[in-house]
Parts: sequence; C-alpha cells; structure tokens
Amino acid sequence: MKKINYSDLQRFTQLVFEKNGASEVDAKQATETLLSADLRGISSHGIARLGGYLRLLKKGRMKFDPKIAIIDKTPSTAVVDGDEGLGLLIGNVAMQTAIEKAKKVGTAWVAARNSTHFGIAGYYAIQALKEDMIGIAMTNASPLVAPIFGRERMLGTNPIAFAIPTKKEIPFVADFATSAVPNGKLEIAQREEKEVPQGWVQDKQGLPSTNSRELEKGGTLLPLGGTAEMGGHKGYCLASVVDILSGVLSGANFGPWIPPFVSFMDPPKKTIGKGIGHFFGAMRIDAFQPKQVFLKQMDAWVQRFQQTNAFHTDRPVLTPGEVEYFKEIENKKYGIPIHEKVIKELTQIGKDCEISSELFTS
Amino acid sequence: MKKINYSDLQRFTQLVFEKNGASEVDAKQATETLLSADLRGISSHGIARLGGYLRLLKKGRMKFDPKIAIIDKTPSTAVVDGDEGLGLLIGNVAMQTAIEKAKKVGTAWVAARNSTHFGIAGYYAIQALKEDMIGIAMTNASPLVAPIFGRERMLGTNPIAFAIPTKKEIPFVADFATSAVPNGKLEIAQREEKEVPQGWVQDKQGLPSTNSRELEKGGTLLPLGGTAEMGGHKGYCLASVVDILSGVLSGANFGPWIPPFVSFMDPPKKTIGKGIGHFFGAMRIDAFQPKQVFLKQMDAWVQRFQQTNAFHTDRPVLTPGEVEYFKEIENKKYGIPIHEKVIKELTQIGKDCEISSELFTS
Repeated sequence: MKKINYSDLQRFTQLVFEKNGASEVDAKQATETLLSADLRGISSHGIARLGGYLRLLKKGRMKFDPKIAIIDKTPSTAVVDGDEGLGLLIGNVAMQTAIEKAKKVGTAWVAARNSTHFGIAGYYAIQALKEDMIGIAMTNASPLVAPIFGRERMLGTNPIAFAIPTKKEIPFVADFATSAVPNGKLEIAQREEKEVPQGWVQDKQGLPSTNSRELEKGGTLLPLGGTAEMGGHKGYCLASVVDILSGVLSGANFGPWIPPFVSFMDPPKKTIGKGIGHFFGAMRIDAFQPKQVFLKQMDAWVQRFQQTNAFHTDRPVLTPGEVEYFKEIENKKYGIPIHEKVIKELTQIGKDCEISSELFTS
Repeated sequence: MKKINYSDLQRFTQLVFEKNGASEVDAKQATETLLSADLRGISSHGIARLGGYLRLLKKGRMKFDPKIAIIDKTPSTAVVDGDEGLGLLIGNVAMQTAIEKAKKVGTAWVAARNSTHFGIAGYYAIQALKEDMIGIAMTNASPLVAPIFGRERMLGTNPIAFAIPTKKEIPFVADFATSAVPNGKLEIAQREEKEVPQGWVQDKQGLPSTNSRELEKGGTLLPLGGTAEMGGHKGYCLASVVDILSGVLSGANFGPWIPPFVSFMDPPKKTIGKGIGHFFGAMRIDAFQPKQVFLKQMDAWVQRFQQTNAFHTDRPVLTPGEVEYFKEIENKKYGIPIHEKVIKELTQIGKDCEISSELFTS
C-alpha cells in the first residue's frame, strides 16, 4: 500500500479520461464519481477499476464521449439512454435529472439504460443530500448470484443505496450489494488462502461450499441471507427488484442477459435490452415534513442508534455510513492507500496515455 | 385446522368490524385487507389478529371509525394522519392516494402516521397492479430486532413489499420482513420444541443463541443476513430505511419508540411522533416504458427465472409471489385453513359481538 494525495490522484485520473476522449467537464465528473469510492474506503470500486474501463473502451464496448439522451416522460419521471457510454457520466446525468424534477413536483425517478459500470451507488444517492432530499440509486450488474433453489448465475450483486439528510449528525448513507457478500470479499479470502463461511457461495451443482475460488469453477454467489433457512429468498427478492427497476423499467438488459464488466469475457450473444441499467430517485424532505422538523428527528434517530447498548463496550453500534464518513475525512487528510498492484497498472496507464507524471514513481 | 369458506369468513369479519364501530364501507375494506393475508397463506397476519385489534380497541389505543386526514403536499406526495385508527383502513386511504396522484404525475409517495398494524404490506402493493403500476408498501413496527453489534431492541421486523405487473405470467410480488425471520417462525419452533438455527436470535447479552424462546428472556431478533459476517449489516440498513421512510418522514414514532401491537404491553412512556408509520409508492409503467413493451419484458423475466437450472429437479426455482398466487387460488376454492386455537377465539368474539353465526360451530 502506498498513500497518494487525493488531488494528485484526481489530476491523473482526469487526464486519463481526457486523453481517451472525454471532454474536460466529463473527465472531471467521471473522476469525482470514480474516486468517491476510494475516498469512502471502497477501494474495489475506485481507481482500481480505471484499467477495466480503458479495456472496455479499447474493445469498443464503451464510449468516453457518449451522446446521452434524456427522454422526458412525466413530471416525475424520465428515461436516460446512455449511448453505451461511461456509466460514471450516465449515472450523473440521470441522478441530476431526478433531482431537478423532484424540485418541481416533490419526488422523481429516472431509469437509465444503455449504460455500463457506474462506480458506487452511494455516490449518486449522496448528491441528493446537498438539496435536502433523500437520494436512492441502484444498478443491475452481470450475473453471479443464483436464486434460491437455483444453481445458475441469474442476478448481479445488484447494489442499492439510500442517503438521508440529518441536521448535525452524520448523514444516513446505506450502500450495499444485495448478495450475501460482494466478490471482493472472496478475493480477500483468496489472497489469505482461507475458506469462506457457508452461505457465501455454492458450487456449480448448487451444493454448499466454503471454497473461496468456487466462482472460478462455475459456482455462484448466494443472495443476501444466504440459504433459504436464513432468509436467502428475501435477498433474492431484493436483488430481483433492483434488476427489474434498473433493467426492465429502463429498457436495458436484465437477469442473465447483462453483459460482463470484465473485457476478457464476451457479452452474451442474445441481448434483450440495451447495455446495463440503473435507477435513481430523489425525494424532497419538505414534500412530506417541514425540513427542520425532519432533520431534527433524523438527528434523534442517529443519536439513539449510536447510543444503543452494544455487545462489546469497545465496539459501539454504528449508523449506516458512519465508517465511510470518517474514512473520507482520513483519506482526504492523509492520502488514499493504493495497492502496489494497482500502482503498477496505473503507472503503465500513465505511460500509455503519455501523461508525464511523477505520481506513482516518487 | 378447519377449512372455512372465504365468503363465510368475510361475512363474519365484516360484522365484527361493524359491531365495533366501523361503517359498512370501512368494515368491508378492513375485512378484505385483513383476509388477504389468509388467502395468500400468511395466516399469522390475517384473521388470527382480529382479537388483537379488538383488544387494542377496548384499551382505547385504536379507533375503528377514525377521521383519516389526507394532507396534500406536492403533486407527487401526501401525508396521511390516521387519527389512531385501524391500520387496515389508513393503509388503504394512503395507497389509493398514491395511486391517484401517480395517475396525474407518473409516480407518487404517501407517508402515513398515527396508524396501527396494517396487515400485510403485500396487499397494498398489489392494489397498484390493477392500474398497471408498480406498487410499494412498507411499515415500521414495534422493536424486536437489534442492530449489528447491538443487543437492544431497536427496530421492528419492518416488512417491505413490491408488486410489479406482468402480461400473462404470475405477477411479481415480493413481501418480506427485513429481519432474518419473522417472529412467527420462532413460534413454529416453540410448538415443535425445536432449536432454531444460529443467526435468527441472540440472547439479551448479544450472544448467539439457538433457543426458540430467547425473546421471552429479553433477547432480540437479528436483521436479515444474521451476523455481521453473513451480511447482517445490510439487513440492518434495510430495516432502518423502512423505519425512517415510514416513521420519520411521516411524523410517526420510529426505532425504539414504536408502541407495541400487543395490548398486554404498555406503549413506551416517551413518544417521539404519532402512532406507527407506513410508506406507500405507486409508479405508472408508462411513465418509463410503453406499457405493452414492459409487460412483455416482465413475462420474459418471470419465464427465464422459472426455467433456471435448479438444485433439485423436483423443486424448481420460484419467482417472488408464485407460492402465494397458487395458495390464493387453492384457499378460495377449498376454504381457508384456520387453527383450532383461532377458531376458539373467533367463536368467543362472535358471542361477545352477539353475532348469530353457525360459522365456527358447524
């Protein structure tokens, strides 16, 4: 791990996007969205994916200068067609459209299709906080998860995020994959050569497994809840809702038809929609309660949950988003820790893009 | 178990509501909503709760003839104040308001406060299907669930439901508690004198437990996902979102301040809002996609998931709502199975209300 200043990382990333066809404005936006993951400590979804975006660009499966179309539908809804562009850009256009529409009629929803990987769902939900709105964002993703009783990859890890404003307390931000675990948790177990708990994965026959490399052998992730006994059907329901709102409602692909993010895997031969899909919502607080009343009550909610009797006195109950909030402060101040392997890849990207930077060599 | 005709059960229930102060129209509506649980096979939330409603009525903690107020807020939102009424009535007023508003502006959301137990969330979500809309319903409930790392009852089983229309296939209806299991699953284990799997409950110290009677000793339910290792923080997030949208956004109580449904437990001395809260949403399909296109794609979704390779050839993958759909057909045709204990209670209710009925004695 090496710690790199946020501003250095930002400058580098923006240049990479620009050198590969993004306008200055778009490159800046894509950078902010991508690096929000690193700032919040979700390193699997940040700068580590820059190479992945570039490989899809080179394969002609993603555009860095898409012509994004906003198709107005009703006072409270729109559909965005992303023109196979960078999801980081499409997500922002869609979320901003939801926020602007909510300003007028109270709440609004925007479904996006023809998109690609959009970074972390939490980033978009958080945009609503600045406007005293509740923000919601979700996306479908390439299939890795089996439905309960199944042994086939039918659903992505389909994350969903909710951001809810507070007055003085840390804002409520929930951002989670609807699978029992994201793929990243398996990768950690692989590096440590450890078994994983039952309920994370199953083998390709659908039998329980504790092998962290089960996915390589055709296995599947389990939905949130794990087995049927533990409520896995609920995770299956939730992942399905995310898939349908993001995919079916937008006109994107859904379920097993979703194209993979990784460039070494070909997209499915049959498509049923356009690209991958996202779904964004914005709700004005004062569309329900006087703003100050709500914010004060949310402060009471956060305070009360932080004061909950804990199992360990040295491990207090956390409110959703608390860890990431402090991580962001830390990372902005002391730099963002980047894995050696990622540094190496970024150095190569810098060379390929002819960016003269001492960033990763000093 | 005794099977009773739906129409007989309906007539009896409606009379009980009427004899206790509900108007004919309201009694009919409350009956339909309550019995929808029995029809769909969720017997814990149906007629078995009639006695519970009556006990709260007698304690002055619930009205059967509430003055429900609809407070219009924006073109896409409203707040409903339920006047401490029967949740079964308040839920319907709120859901219908959401549907009417969505007709005008595409999507709409209604938060309800000052309410009580509203039956099954799925009933309200399903109302949207008749209008070619997606329906969403959720409610907070009296605290039984501890947040991750906690050992205090802070959240209810806070169910959430989504109903999504199809063309020819069985509609998608997901309706689930956001705890690992609902209390009803513990009651089944108690009757059978069995232990429950780890991850359902913990004792009052916050230690893992397999005792089905742990709640009686001050223990707590765990959120969906169970332990932190299995993703329980995600269930905690989801239950919290349901609590905040239902409770904080409506002006109801939330978290540990929610009054209990059971009449033998007193409400908390301190309140932070009014009654319990619900949240309802309706989204017009054609606010996003041409209706016929969407319905056809949803049929493809349902068909594809039903065809998923299953672990057991004799236990196919089910789509959300499939089991309940067939249960409803069966129960309408052959009668609704009612537990002896419930029959006994209903017989007494009939006597108390002076309803001359051979219903439960024949």
